[in-house]
Amino acid sequence: MSTEARTIEVKPDSFSYFFSPYREPTAKVKPGDRVVVHTEDAFESRIQNKDDLPSKSLATAKFLNPQTGPIFVEGAEPGDTLAVKIESIEPTRDFAVSALVPFFGGLTSTVATRTLQEPLPEKVWIWKLSDDGKTLYNEDVGVEVEWEPFTGTLAVAPDLEAISALAPGPFGGNMDVPDVRPGNTVYLPVWNEGALVYTGDCHARQGQGEACGVALEITAKVTFVFDVIKNKQIEWPRIESDERIMVVGSAKPMEDAARIANVELILWLEEEYGFDRLDAYQLVTQAGGLYVGNMVDTTYSLVASMGKKYLRR
Amino acid sequence: MSTEARTIEVKPDSFSYFFSPYREPTAKVKPGDRVVVHTEDAFESRIQNKDDLPSKSLATAKFLNPQTGPIFVEGAEPGDTLAVKIESIEPTRDFAVSALVPFFGGLTSTVATRTLQEPLPEKVWIWKLSDDGKTLYNEDVGVEVEWEPFTGTLAVAPDLEAISALAPGPFGGNMDVPDVRPGNTVYLPVWNEGALVYTGDCHARQGQGEACGVALEITAKVTFVFDVIKNKQIEWPRIESDERIMVVGSAKPMEDAARIANVELILWLEEEYGFDRLDAYQLVTQAGGLYVGNMVDTTYSLVASMGKKYLRR
Amino acid sequence: MSTEARTIEVKPDSFSYFFSPYREPTAKVKPGDRVVVHTEDAFESRIQNKDDLPSKSLATAKFLNPQTGPIFVEGAEPGDTLAVKIESIEPTRDFAVSALVPFFGGLTSTVATRTLQEPLPEKVWIWKLSDDGKTLYNEDVGVEVEWEPFTGTLAVAPDLEAISALAPGPFGGNMDVPDVRPGNTVYLPVWNEGALVYTGDCHARQGQGEACGVALEITAKVTFVFDVIKNKQIEWPRIESDERIMVVGSAKPMEDAARIANVELILWLEEEYGFDRLDAYQLVTQAGGLYVGNMVDTTYSLVASMGKKYLRR
Amino acid sequence: MSTEARTIEVKPDSFSYFFSPYREPTAKVKPGDRVVVHTEDAFESRIQNKDDLPSKSLATAKFLNPQTGPIFVEGAEPGDTLAVKIESIEPTRDFAVSALVPFFGGLTSTVATRTLQEPLPEKVWIWKLSDDGKTLYNEDVGVEVEWEPFTGTLAVAPDLEAISALAPGPFGGNMDVPDVRPGNTVYLPVWNEGALVYTGDCHARQGQGEACGVALEITAKVTFVFDVIKNKQIEWPRIESDERIMVVGSAKPMEDAARIANVELILWLEEEYGFDRLDAYQLVTQAGGLYVGNMVDTTYSLVASMGKKYLRR
Repeated sequence: MSTEARTIEVKPDSFSYFFSPYREPTAKVKPGDRVVVHTEDAFESRIQNKDDLPSKSLATAKFLNPQTGPIFVEGAEPGDTLAVKIESIEPTRDFAVSALVPFFGGLTSTVATRTLQEPLPEKVWIWKLSDDGKTLYNEDVGVEVEWEPFTGTLAVAPDLEAISALAPGPFGGNMDVPDVRPGNTVYLPVWNEGALVYTGDCHARQGQGEACGVALEITAKVTFVFDVIKNKQIEWPRIESDERIMVVGSAKPMEDAARIANVELILWLEEEYGFDRLDAYQLVTQAGGLYVGNMVDTTYSLVASMGKKYLRR
Repeated sequence: MSTEARTIEVKPDSFSYFFSPYREPTAKVKPGDRVVVHTEDAFESRIQNKDDLPSKSLATAKFLNPQTGPIFVEGAEPGDTLAVKIESIEPTRDFAVSALVPFFGGLTSTVATRTLQEPLPEKVWIWKLSDDGKTLYNEDVGVEVEWEPFTGTLAVAPDLEAISALAPGPFGGNMDVPDVRPGNTVYLPVWNEGALVYTGDCHARQGQGEACGVALEITAKVTFVFDVIKNKQIEWPRIESDERIMVVGSAKPMEDAARIANVELILWLEEEYGFDRLDAYQLVTQAGGLYVGNMVDTTYSLVASMGKKYLRR
Repeated sequence: MSTEARTIEVKPDSFSYFFSPYREPTAKVKPGDRVVVHTEDAFESRIQNKDDLPSKSLATAKFLNPQTGPIFVEGAEPGDTLAVKIESIEPTRDFAVSALVPFFGGLTSTVATRTLQEPLPEKVWIWKLSDDGKTLYNEDVGVEVEWEPFTGTLAVAPDLEAISALAPGPFGGNMDVPDVRPGNTVYLPVWNEGALVYTGDCHARQGQGEACGVALEITAKVTFVFDVIKNKQIEWPRIESDERIMVVGSAKPMEDAARIANVELILWLEEEYGFDRLDAYQLVTQAGGLYVGNMVDTTYSLVASMGKKYLRR
Repeated sequence: MSTEARTIEVKPDSFSYFFSPYREPTAKVKPGDRVVVHTEDAFESRIQNKDDLPSKSLATAKFLNPQTGPIFVEGAEPGDTLAVKIESIEPTRDFAVSALVPFFGGLTSTVATRTLQEPLPEKVWIWKLSDDGKTLYNEDVGVEVEWEPFTGTLAVAPDLEAISALAPGPFGGNMDVPDVRPGNTVYLPVWNEGALVYTGDCHARQGQGEACGVALEITAKVTFVFDVIKNKQIEWPRIESDERIMVVGSAKPMEDAARIANVELILWLEEEYGFDRLDAYQLVTQAGGLYVGNMVDTTYSLVASMGKKYLRR
């Protein structure tokens, strides 16, 4: 960690729609800095009320999921691992939006799973944040849900590729995994000088799978603290909470995402916790977690995990 | 429920390796009876210690996953739904077994996902049940895990088909879903007179996904109470706990299992809880659960769920 | 081959909707007999004209794809391979039917790939067979296509399982593969005394993939000659034409079907044509065929093949 | 077409490992020019003989599949379609190479379909081109195969994304489809000024599916003629031969590639050949082709096609 703890605010002038090594850094920060990042919502605030149907409100949007960044983290070099501690997420407006977007989501045909059918009807849901900020309510659904925010998108720039901000991958990206939340630390591989961090797409909350493809989208202020772990290479994003260690695998079909996440978890148990590989496979079989983060993005993200209580031996 | 509550013990003379409408009932019971079913483990107790490698111990086993049944439930007729309350699971030996079986499991090529590679090494793990019956321990893994038993396989006979006891499906079957556990109620569609219930494959516990394909396999005594819901048709297995309602979808690729489970959950919310269909889709998006039960069987089983707290409105 | 060549006509009184070892044989034949089998179409002739929309005409059909059989082939025992030479297919009416059935087909959501969308419109196409029997014509499509008939469904009974006649698998079944055609020989594994052959679902022709799920369905008379290859076990259906050897793999996702078909083809090249396994893999890479038979049934069928010209060395 | 037909030779100084809009054009050409492009093989000629095992010879290669380009085609603008006529492919050496690369190919676990198994053995095959250039022969396989060359990789730059040269997609790319061959015309969507064409990875031949992931890789000289179709937008690559029209869909799982290719073919039949959409679906069902181009790349490429004889009406 850096010895000087500064607070740096990152308010972007423009957004990136790609995780790209080709874009100039928006900010330079040091490990240990408290970095407060302002983020747009996935629709760039084009949807504000029930009448802003996607076919109308998004018609002029060439790209979606605007990202703040890249943020250059000093000292991060190819071959390192970036540790991203999420300290807090604060909403910067008093409502969240969700919507049914034509041919987008988990329970409709899509541009990838093409059929000849008509799309589902469009609909917009506005969820009002309560005065105490602890719950959200939508009158059509008629249910109150808890404020449990997380960052839908958190990425480093890939190695020479520039990839759509709608994609999850080894670089993190649009994972839509609820465990990318305040209190947890996300580990990402570093391929570029400065790591080049992108983030956005904050969610007031989301169920596992993000069924319709659009969580409770908010504009937000996210506070990160970065750390650089030198000369340590990981293959896929890792997450650590107080209770669990986790790996996010993203692929299609979904079983490939599950395989990636579980294999990487087993290798982690082998390398850092002293398990024989096959015994780690056995432990994951009997005690591992495996949930669906998203079943809607360009690839699906699954989270394999192990309780830390099983790692003390 | 039946007015006379009897306790009926079902100790099979032979086992079925199929969910079949063609096999004579092992027992006839009434709704409300307490039915205590003795079950074999998935290997029919052929693996008793570390040296019983599958290629040797299972060589003479033509079929796996022996089932007790069918149990004929009086009053159950095609078009009804069978409610199966699981009251308890007691082990009938003091250890559980798991094993790496060649070309079986989630992190190896298999008979379905064929490759030209060699299989993984074989290995057997014996997990000793503690004296108080609350934990299990294996010395190779070196970790203690909790006794959290459930029934790996619970089925009704399909409509005219006779299907391998290794398969999950609309009939329930080899779902390997940890929520098929004491305290919960499983709902299954009825296609045959008497429903014709099969069960077996009890697990001392299992992680989500059952990564290596073999949970902590035990012989057991399972206590069920059946109820018949007349003239109610469901398409896929449902589970109800104190906290959640759940649907189990089984298919390949895994996203199809997720789609089935989520669509069925949405239809359930629409039909029985008064939600508009699209609002139910929205609620599942923001508050639904979605975990992998198994990624190892003939099809994969995913569990979509909704907290009951969101259903009070 | 049998020394006495008889012609036996099999006209069923009733049909089977399952590939089942539990059904009494419709006929007993000997290897070498010329067996003329009358088959129904997949809709059991419920669709006769454009107005017979599936939602109406099929409403009373509990099961689809009626099969003639089982035919007991004398001398066939478990562990043998059955060779089925298809000599000819003759239509028994002067038209073929195809239809769009709600939630069935390759370019719509289905009961397996569930979405919340509405089904595609229903439509029936009647294709008239020309007077010379060489082409078919539908006035809506306005195109003439060639009479190139094949048997959509050809199966042996599985080992104890009774499986829906809509399913393809290791037992053959509803493969919907155009190479199951007159002039070719299909090889199937034998699990039951007499092999227990089922067939039906003849098609006047079909494209690769059978996109909408319904080929040019006809009633027909199919002439087979069976042969038994003693003590030879195969894992998946094989086909031999004058030009090629082929393997049919059926699975989901589609890549698993491709893997099965290619691995089995490589093992065939190794076992019977003297190739080293890796060299066979190489030859398949550079000269193998791989087309989609069906992308619509309960599992997808892919056909891997090798030209016989590459086998002479 | 351009009025002045020039011949332009493109010999690259360096290669691109990405389909990128960010790279300076290697050459500028006009529609109608005969453009002779020199291409490297997929391994950048690092494998020259049987002893150049991939783990050794490719160890220093950070990226694979080097591309020549981009070639700027004058007059091509976003919203146009680029027509690429392939006139000829000439080898620039007298042998082709193939190899088994660890964890790469269709019949092994991979970085996407992860397992815990060991890789297949490595092996290199050198196939000698005959003196008349019509066949190739490898002594281990012992079989002679025909010279039927095609371009494994042909792409336009995507819209702002820079994507690995190993990927196929809507932009064309590493499709590994044998129909991208001399005599045929490939149509690609244009997203950038000048289209920005990349090509490489020529193959002396390849079977359908490219099972082991490495075709008969050659260095070559490819002659293209480009044409620009103004204000015509296509979604996925199209190919036209004398006999057939084709669409290439690339996705995972493989059925998604098949859906894309078939839906796009149906829309093509509707838009340009006057078929009603459902009738086009019917025609594709009865007369369409559907083969696997590759089952080894980052996504799988399937080719849906229709014989031109069915389009004359």
